[in-house]
Amino acid sequence: MSDPCVLVLDADPLPRLDRLAGRAVITHTDEPSLPELLPEADVLLVWDFLSDAVRAAWPGPGPRPRWVHTASAGVDRLLIPELLASDTVVTNARGTFDGPIAEYVAGLVLAMAKDFPGRWAAQRERRWAYRETEKVAGTRAVVVGSGPIGRRIARTLLVLGIEVELVGRTARETDREFGRVHGNGALPGLLRGADWVVCAAPLTPETKGMFDADAFALMKPTARFVNVGRGQHVVEDDLADALAGGRLAGAALDVFSDEPLPADSPLWGLPGLLISPHMSGDTVGWRDDLSAQFCDNFDRWIAGEPLFNVVDKELGYVPGEMA
Amino acid sequence: MSDPCVLVLDADPLPRLDRLAGRAVITHTDEPSLPELLPEADVLLVWDFLSDAVRAAWPGPGPRPRWVHTASAGVDRLLIPELLASDTVVTNARGTFDGPIAEYVAGLVLAMAKDFPGRWAAQRERRWAYRETEKVAGTRAVVVGSGPIGRRIARTLLVLGIEVELVGRTARETDREFGRVHGNGALPGLLRGADWVVCAAPLTPETKGMFDADAFALMKPTARFVNVGRGQHVVEDDLADALAGGRLAGAALDVFSDEPLPADSPLWGLPGLLISPHMSGDTVGWRDDLSAQFCDNFDRWIAGEPLFNVVDKELGYVPGEMA
Repeated sequence: MSDPCVLVLDADPLPRLDRLAGRAVITHTDEPSLPELLPEADVLLVWDFLSDAVRAAWPGPGPRPRWVHTASAGVDRLLIPELLASDTVVTNARGTFDGPIAEYVAGLVLAMAKDFPGRWAAQRERRWAYRETEKVAGTRAVVVGSGPIGRRIARTLLVLGIEVELVGRTARETDREFGRVHGNGALPGLLRGADWVVCAAPLTPETKGMFDADAFALMKPTARFVNVGRGQHVVEDDLADALAGGRLAGAALDVFSDEPLPADSPLWGLPGLLISPHMSGDTVGWRDDLSAQFCDNFDRWIAGEPLFNVVDKELGYVPGEMA
Repeated sequence: MSDPCVLVLDADPLPRLDRLAGRAVITHTDEPSLPELLPEADVLLVWDFLSDAVRAAWPGPGPRPRWVHTASAGVDRLLIPELLASDTVVTNARGTFDGPIAEYVAGLVLAMAKDFPGRWAAQRERRWAYRETEKVAGTRAVVVGSGPIGRRIARTLLVLGIEVELVGRTARETDREFGRVHGNGALPGLLRGADWVVCAAPLTPETKGMFDADAFALMKPTARFVNVGRGQHVVEDDLADALAGGRLAGAALDVFSDEPLPADSPLWGLPGLLISPHMSGDTVGWRDDLSAQFCDNFDRWIAGEPLFNVVDKELGYVPGEMA
């Protein structure tokens, strides 16, 4: 049997796949060449996880990769009808981003409570702008998304003394760590009481656009919203209206419907909105971690063992106790 | 016996002392009137803790307050030879600021690790400036100051996964919470290994100017320095040189030798330096907490019970297990 063909849809820099040397034929591709190469591949590694090229290039009837791995936690760009209907296994980068994203969210919460943006604006004006700030201990957060990222965020906010309610697809009363996990149906009531609302959900048809005018209207005018999920969780115009109208005290977005956020987007200059360029999970060395995670899974695949992080293609994420 | 006279050296807004009604004669004073009123006072409440007026006004031989309370954690402005030599009891606001300051420091550490200042600068330019950032989990911090504020900072950094070494006046191996507390003599070695150096020490002759060119030279060029102690812990020119010369990656100062920091100070525009106006401990309601703390101690004083938070005037802070 010849070595399997691993096709890599690249972004810069290339993944480190030295561990596969002698055991796989590795072919790198860009978007234009993907349709031609895809039917020949046994394995597709989607390194450029923001690309929609797989959707365009996925083969119809006939040969196709048996395994697709995406170097991201979200798999929304792979939820293609033809891929859903196939027996191709999809795996993701679950676990790599949890800690960094939780740190990022905790930093944003503290930065907003302590008004770092305002203090540093005063610094640029050489102005001693004393003000009282907020304690985060004793405030209340709602974290939407009960997968590993949402759980890690919840845990980090908890150790800062914040009361946290976790919301997932399915309500349950016996979560090993958090006791109760709320279902999405409980969200309206929870939004009313929250000082912090954090979105870390997978993007699925159910969660798309869930943060709209109705949701923002439920939140307290002193509440703040953080999105580290996907841009399409948020109706951005509705968020802009809520902020501009003073119906929400602040927000921080790391993800956007359209990335990179175009220079002419009105979001850039919106008062009370903190913008970062889809980087909350990306700490130095993250690409090496992602490469190692794929190689680990390749070892299992070659040995015929069950893969880690197999995505339930109907649900749109890796299910299980932690989901 | 007539009601005791409580003299209050005010800052805005006034402390809430309603609880003392009918039990004390409360007189408010400003700096010019302090010398005249001070000898008549039984109790002095230094509400304007940044004032040096007590130093100028403290009576020589003759009557003087038997108890001085300062609405601050630091008592450095009360360490006057005549007050040291007297039998006047000094108490402070120990405990009120611990949690807020620890949150503030954690926020600064996360903000620097995630480069919030750089991302928000890019936002002002409508620029999608993607970059990798740093994990804080697994980094190493040195917290100088093993009183309640330093300990609370250490505890908060620990729960974020940071390895923390605590430095106090006296080395000990059997600290109930941290195991080992290092003495100041161990500082040079600890500075060499630290990613984060946090000053939360009391200002005493031993700690004044401890962060000077020699100290900054020991730190890694990737290290960052945070001061929430007192401005005079730092030789500001030396810090500016270290930052400007790239021998230190960043710093955040909440306190300064000269407060408010003058508009013409070169510190305002120093790259890599984050400035806030002596506010790290001041969360909404903090003055009410301080008032309540003084009134609690007044209840004990009237009842002839031992006061809380009695400062060891030689040491310059409240000693004990937590010091």
